[in-house]
Amino acid sequence: MARVLMLKCVLCGRTYREREVDYTCPHCGMDGTLDVLYDYDEIKKHFTRECLEKSRDFTQWRYRDILPVNDETNIQPLEVGFTPLYDSGVLAREYGAKKVYIKDDGRNPTASLKDRASAVGVARALDYGKNTIACSSTGNAASSMAGFAAVAGLKSFIFVPESAPEAKVAQLLIYGATVVLVKGNYEDAFNLSTAAIYKFGWYNRNCGINPYLVEGKKTCGLEIAEQLGWEAPDRIFIAVGDGCCISGLYKAFYDLKALGFIDRMPKLVGVQAAGSSPIYHAFKYHLPKVEFVKPDTLADSIAVGAPRNWAKALRAVRQTAGDMVTVTDEEILEAMKELARKTGVFGEPAGVTGFAGFKKMAKERYIGMDERIAIVVTGNGLKDIASARKAVAKPILVEPDINELLKRICC
Amino acid sequence: MARVLMLKCVLCGRTYREREVDYTCPHCGMDGTLDVLYDYDEIKKHFTRECLEKSRDFTQWRYRDILPVNDETNIQPLEVGFTPLYDSGVLAREYGAKKVYIKDDGRNPTASLKDRASAVGVARALDYGKNTIACSSTGNAASSMAGFAAVAGLKSFIFVPESAPEAKVAQLLIYGATVVLVKGNYEDAFNLSTAAIYKFGWYNRNCGINPYLVEGKKTCGLEIAEQLGWEAPDRIFIAVGDGCCISGLYKAFYDLKALGFIDRMPKLVGVQAAGSSPIYHAFKYHLPKVEFVKPDTLADSIAVGAPRNWAKALRAVRQTAGDMVTVTDEEILEAMKELARKTGVFGEPAGVTGFAGFKKMAKERYIGMDERIAIVVTGNGLKDIASARKAVAKPILVEPDINELLKRICC
Repeated sequence: MARVLMLKCVLCGRTYREREVDYTCPHCGMDGTLDVLYDYDEIKKHFTRECLEKSRDFTQWRYRDILPVNDETNIQPLEVGFTPLYDSGVLAREYGAKKVYIKDDGRNPTASLKDRASAVGVARALDYGKNTIACSSTGNAASSMAGFAAVAGLKSFIFVPESAPEAKVAQLLIYGATVVLVKGNYEDAFNLSTAAIYKFGWYNRNCGINPYLVEGKKTCGLEIAEQLGWEAPDRIFIAVGDGCCISGLYKAFYDLKALGFIDRMPKLVGVQAAGSSPIYHAFKYHLPKVEFVKPDTLADSIAVGAPRNWAKALRAVRQTAGDMVTVTDEEILEAMKELARKTGVFGEPAGVTGFAGFKKMAKERYIGMDERIAIVVTGNGLKDIASARKAVAKPILVEPDINELLKRICC
Repeated sequence: MARVLMLKCVLCGRTYREREVDYTCPHCGMDGTLDVLYDYDEIKKHFTRECLEKSRDFTQWRYRDILPVNDETNIQPLEVGFTPLYDSGVLAREYGAKKVYIKDDGRNPTASLKDRASAVGVARALDYGKNTIACSSTGNAASSMAGFAAVAGLKSFIFVPESAPEAKVAQLLIYGATVVLVKGNYEDAFNLSTAAIYKFGWYNRNCGINPYLVEGKKTCGLEIAEQLGWEAPDRIFIAVGDGCCISGLYKAFYDLKALGFIDRMPKLVGVQAAGSSPIYHAFKYHLPKVEFVKPDTLADSIAVGAPRNWAKALRAVRQTAGDMVTVTDEEILEAMKELARKTGVFGEPAGVTGFAGFKKMAKERYIGMDERIAIVVTGNGLKDIASARKAVAKPILVEPDINELLKRICC
């Protein structure tokens, strides 16, 4: 377990001790999200590449030396992380890159990358002696938190916008969470959850403001680096909603560089849905701050008009000489089919948005033939079947009769 | 890769060479399913527990020395198997057993145990030089085959009963399979697929008759044994539909015993839905043969009235001094909720049927306090959200207003 050295505001640079602040910078308010920093020189002494090579822990907790959990017994047994990284020769050839790696984070316990954050969030809530944890979410963070809270014996309250897909809502009800469906969008759900969390003193799992959750998400990046033999890819594509996942990737490579595990950062490319792209907009127009919008995309997990972690997300792209791109809903659905057919990885709409962005940039010849590309698939396609059905044709319906069948199919 | 020594009919005991027969025993017809047997004395010389300890392959292919694939290059990269085995102290205490282990096979690439069989089936189809693979399925085998066929570049034809859940159908369309929805039940779909496979010369992935597929499924049992340090549990509970999964478990422990990895077989307990329990019926009434029924259960993956692998399934239970039990749909839905809340594992109805059977037998005091129990969860709950919704209450719907919320919840 890593002792936290300090929390540092991403906007003003002020630093705080671990228990001095709970969520965001008191000086900068909600926009001032905090980085969790460690004593890297101290950690270096005992946490090495060689140690990891010997480790038999094939979950994200193999990186516990740089994860902010104080009491190891608060780690829940659900096996999170160490998801597959597929080397797709088919995609590399087709899109003209040296390598294309697909990181399938839909293979996590509740089927999304959010499990990485929830695992840390629940452990932190227990560290603080809380018995209730709450969040607002478009769905994945919620079902993930519900799952981990259930195992930990914590009560959970979840605030989701009314439009959340039924699969995700059913999943969290199954886990025994109290689900509050908010008549409104994600921002309304977020605001109501914040008010309730303050009122009741619950632990806040909102990844957009809780600095420890991005630490969980960073394990996705740590794994990519380790799975590639500690040679960071040239570019990583990932969907951007709230901005937390891309911030997690940034933090992963920041930590690894500080520890001397890698010597250069990959370029991080954030992909937003065209109908919900406030961070893209701020990046393209060099704005100091993100302007909130009304989201409109079928990729519900990134339908975030008021992204809370915008400051970290912009930094991730800017500091790595990365880029941002938007894709339409049609491009997302097309990417969903193509990825499944070429790699066997079935992602939800937001899950394949990173791949859709890669396709777009590759077609526009932004990708070099010598580049090693990684693409993160953030959630499983089974989470949103309604969208999957939009992407495909109907099955053939026949009577159980071979002659009828012969008339209907051609082989 | 293991060279197949012989195929042996489970009914008459006749043996055949590998390419002498394709699917079932010519003498016994469809009921005469075949065991795939190896030269265990030869394999013993190089395949040892020590080898496995050193292996860095954490997929089912770590057991390739006892898997019937001839050409290693036909193994697809989708990472299948080595799913978590959770030690649930909560369940052990509650139900009075020494240990209760939950094997979460919903963590496979397409989210069910069937992936183990599809991985082998697709490799065998390629071994045979086929370019099309087909099966009938209530859903999971189909989506699984579609996923693996897509990656392998094989065409796939899938025959499903009209009642298959939409999630499963969408998943296989996403993978690019040609889906034939058959107006009828699973038996109708099976018969039509058999006729079409014969007509077109496709490779037959129907697990009920293709002996090699049970070999894939056995890896679930191999993993349980290895994850428990080669000490087989006392009893393993698993849902039974076609009879293939329990036959896979039997074969796993049969092979391990033949190789000297373990010294006793676990008792295998097959759990069927009360509305679709022909194998249970044959077991309880000591019938020589299973009588087919019309299935009626919401657990679609085991809604099999005409189970093709009944002979192997009955042997698995009888030879291990195991047992069979039935559970109602209500007990299945209750088990779904309980398992999710106590272990974080969200299974589909058939997926949790093994757990429902365990609960029933534990309550009836059939389980000893000193027993080590393993329960296989065969598929992910996200595959059948409609059923999950039947198991839970509705969420609370509120305006985004803290005062309204306070009136609606009690903390």
